Formats: sequence, structure tokens, C-alpha cells
Amino acid sequence: MNTRGRHLLVEYTGCDASVLDDLKRIEALMNQAAKAARTNIVASVFQPFEPQGVTGVVVVEESHLSIHTWPEHGYAAVDFFTCGDAIPEMAHRVLSEGLRAEQAEVIFVDRGFSHTGPSMRMRSHSTEHYGERAYQRASDVTDGTEIMTANVVMAAHRS
Amino acid sequence: MNTRGRHLLVEYTGCDASVLDDLKRIEALMNQAAKAARTNIVASVFQPFEPQGVTGVVVVEESHLSIHTWPEHGYAAVDFFTCGDAIPEMAHRVLSEGLRAEQAEVIFVDRGFSHTGPSMRMRSHSTEHYGERAYQRASDVTDGTEIMTANVVMAAHRS
Repeated sequence: MNTRGRHLLVEYTGCDASVLDDLKRIEALMNQAAKAARTNIVASVFQPFEPQGVTGVVVVEESHLSIHTWPEHGYAAVDFFTCGDAIPEMAHRVLSEGLRAEQAEVIFVDRGFSHTGPSMRMRSHSTEHYGERAYQRASDVTDGTEIMTANVVMAAHRS
Repeated sequence: MNTRGRHLLVEYTGCDASVLDDLKRIEALMNQAAKAARTNIVASVFQPFEPQGVTGVVVVEESHLSIHTWPEHGYAAVDFFTCGDAIPEMAHRVLSEGLRAEQAEVIFVDRGFSHTGPSMRMRSHSTEHYGERAYQRASDVTDGTEIMTANVVMAAHRS
């Protein structure tokens, strides 16, 4: 099996607190994100936090997608780690819209076995700001194939 | 709940292929690692890959620990993401010994909600080489409190 991995670490902020605290909706979004990334779902485990929040993982044949939410901060920490030919960027697109995030901070790491030297490489660390238009067509994003119409401002910064 | 997160992305290489292909042993190691990191286990999901390898996640109250193995390459891609006061380094210690890895490449990322500026910060990217002595006391590592006696060479490099 191909060991090449692409791992997105994402911090979503300014999210809709009611979405972040809705276990069924979060689980549905994460499964939708897994499909959009072209992965094959193996298992889906989601649990509520007390007094609020959700933690969960979608295990896929191509690795995993995880989410941990803090509704009180409008914040979610999410990972999309996929191997082979999956497209984690599509999962990110589904989540940024589904959580109605105002901003996403994204670290992109290449992973995978290498016979020579280090196998991980940080490709980018950026912040995306979404304008109001980002959510006008949120309902269109059913399988991640719809291109998000957000006014996205990319602001690369040093980590 | 405290959003402060500490995330270790680890690539283990030169591992014992028979361990990497042993689902029960990998699941036991990951659960042992979760306990060593002082986390509270919520769920444990592990699946075999065909023709070989294991994929799995331990969901913990403090986030998650995941592993994906490629026995044919002696390689495992592992994540230890913990929030609050958990100690992911202890989980790393259990895995590096349990997989009998020759080398670990580790990226350490601070995560967590911040009102000001980016919330993720890459603290380090290093490679650890384990000498033979690393495994002489492997049986002592039962709960992660044992300090590993490996001859560890840290070699920081730019990512």
C-alpha cells in the first residue's frame, strides 16, 4: 500500500456554537467530509463531552479524520490525515462550511515512508478568512465537489 | 474545558514487522500508551489492512491517539494529540519501545484556542535514533513511568 500521506491540521474559529455542540450533525459532517475526500469509511466513533462539545474520529481505509469541539469558544481542532490518492482539502472544504467558521488556520504536512532522510515535511502554515459569501451556497456542498464561493484571504505566516 | 493541546506527529521506522502486523498487540500498545499519557480512554477502534498492516484510533477524553502501520516497510505513522494536562511524550515512549523502532521522526505542534493570532505553533521537528540498549528494558515499560534507557541521538533539522 502507498505510504504517501497528506495531513492537514486545522483550527476552526468563529464557528456556530450550536453546530459544534450537535453530535449527530458533527458526525454527519465528518462522514460527509470523508466521502468528499474520496476515502472509504471503516468506522465512525463520536462521543459528547460534558457539559458541552463533541469528540470523534472517522477511521478510513486511507487513515483517519478527527474532530474535537469547544462550543464555548466557537472552536474546533480537526485533523484530516489521508494516504494514497485521497484529497483531504475536500474534507476541509466541507468542514469550513459546515461549521460556519469565520477563520481556519491550516498546517499541511507531507508524510510517508522514505528510504532517505526525513519523511515529514511541513508544506505550509496559513490562515484562511471566510467572508459572508462563504455560506450563501453551503447547502450546495453535498459531496465536496462544489467549489466554495467564499472570499478567502490566504495569509501565510511563519510558524 | 481547557483547549490547550499538544500534538506529536511521529513516523516510526525500522520497526519489527511482526509487531506492526499484529492487530491485538498494536491495540494493546496504543491503549497502554494512552494510559501512560494520563488520558481517559473513551473508545478503541482497530482494523486489519489487507494484505497486511493495521489502522486504529484510541479516542480519549483528551482528544485521540492514532496509528497506521505498513509492516512491509517497517513503518508506522502515529499521532498523539492530547488536550489539558495529558503527557503525549509518555505515549511516544511506549510506542517507540513497543514497536522496537530504530528511529522516530517527531513533529511537535502546540494547539489550542487563542484570542490573538495563530493558535498552532510548531515547536520542534527532530529525529531520534535508538541504540540497542533501548530495548533491554522494554519489559519494564508497563505504564510509561519508566524512563527509557535508549541511547537517543537528537538531530534537529529544518522542515
